[in-house]
Amino acid sequence: MTRADPSSSLRIVVVTGGDKRAGDAALAARACRSAALRAGLLESGHELVASLPPDIFLAERIAQFQPDLIIIDSESDARDVLEHIVSATRGTRRPIVLFTEDDSAATMEAAVAAGVSAYVVAGLRAERVRPVLDVALARFKHEQKLLGELADTRRMLAERKVIERAKGVLMKRHGLLEEEAYGRLRSLAMNKNMRLAEVAQRILDVEDLLG
Amino acid sequence: MTRADPSSSLRIVVVTGGDKRAGDAALAARACRSAALRAGLLESGHELVASLPPDIFLAERIAQFQPDLIIIDSESDARDVLEHIVSATRGTRRPIVLFTEDDSAATMEAAVAAGVSAYVVAGLRAERVRPVLDVALARFKHEQKLLGELADTRRMLAERKVIERAKGVLMKRHGLLEEEAYGRLRSLAMNKNMRLAEVAQRILDVEDLLG
Repeated sequence: MTRADPSSSLRIVVVTGGDKRAGDAALAARACRSAALRAGLLESGHELVASLPPDIFLAERIAQFQPDLIIIDSESDARDVLEHIVSATRGTRRPIVLFTEDDSAATMEAAVAAGVSAYVVAGLRAERVRPVLDVALARFKHEQKLLGELADTRRMLAERKVIERAKGVLMKRHGLLEEEAYGRLRSLAMNKNMRLAEVAQRILDVEDLLG
Repeated sequence: MTRADPSSSLRIVVVTGGDKRAGDAALAARACRSAALRAGLLESGHELVASLPPDIFLAERIAQFQPDLIIIDSESDARDVLEHIVSATRGTRRPIVLFTEDDSAATMEAAVAAGVSAYVVAGLRAERVRPVLDVALARFKHEQKLLGELADTRRMLAERKVIERAKGVLMKRHGLLEEEAYGRLRSLAMNKNMRLAEVAQRILDVEDLLG
């Protein structure tokens, strides 16, 4: 990825915290990781727009900053911080990169299932930050595509069911043949300038009302 | 993940290579990374069952070893090695972890699209190997689930189309009402002990033959 690539300068928000119970050694490791992260972000050419705590204002602030990518920098309680972020970005999925020392399988699985694009445990060095973010972006795009395909296919299946049921209602109520019922649906949709599935849903709604 | 977890001892195959054009510095970096990888695998409790070159026997050997996870350890031409692995594991998807110095966006995107569960650039240390593999496994399971859902939904949609078309054929050929046609399909499926979509497909095949 060259600097000319539009994705090469990202607006980034870092969310820190979740280290309430951390001891001295953990705090030292955390300071070291945060320093590497900041150095790496500087070198990467990305823009660090804000550093936020995982508090009740997080959703509002993320909505305000509209970052291209969110980094979680959390020593131990990565899961708590993650839950905050997930609920704060419920409306718009964003690439999330998690740097942590939390290597519990439960946290990893929860993070991946919640859509974290990169989960990086231990030993962060400044020169690794940029490639980690690049891979995270590629993975986020790939997963968005997959989720989009799944949503489209589910929608098509659901619409087909609705259309079939509406056709059945028309055939029964008006004693129509299948093709006639389908033709009726199509011309209704054209006249109302609506999609076939929408017209079909209205017919089913009315049928429910009439019982 | 504790040692008691069945996934905690994985049978791993490492595929090395793709460094034909590597200079002295690259070879040194490679030797360093490979040493860290081996040390990390030893510490992780996983079993390194084979180290293989990316040659024409790769598919056969992977089929023979049946590894739980494949690691690619490649200095620069990660894409070439990856293509070998992808064609070698076409039948059965497996988690693939890529350790490389290749940080080109094109290789990253190709790798993620090809289903690589972890793409790790630069600075491998032994203690990072185990968490990288754990995250890769969690990600692989998550993506398998997503791909499974997509495949199921696509199949349901395709089957629904086939069944609708077959119903139409029966209605036309035999002058049946919709419910009668559906009933005919159902009883055929029950008698033949086949799925509804299979019976429907046979009807369409015969219809194609008869023209």
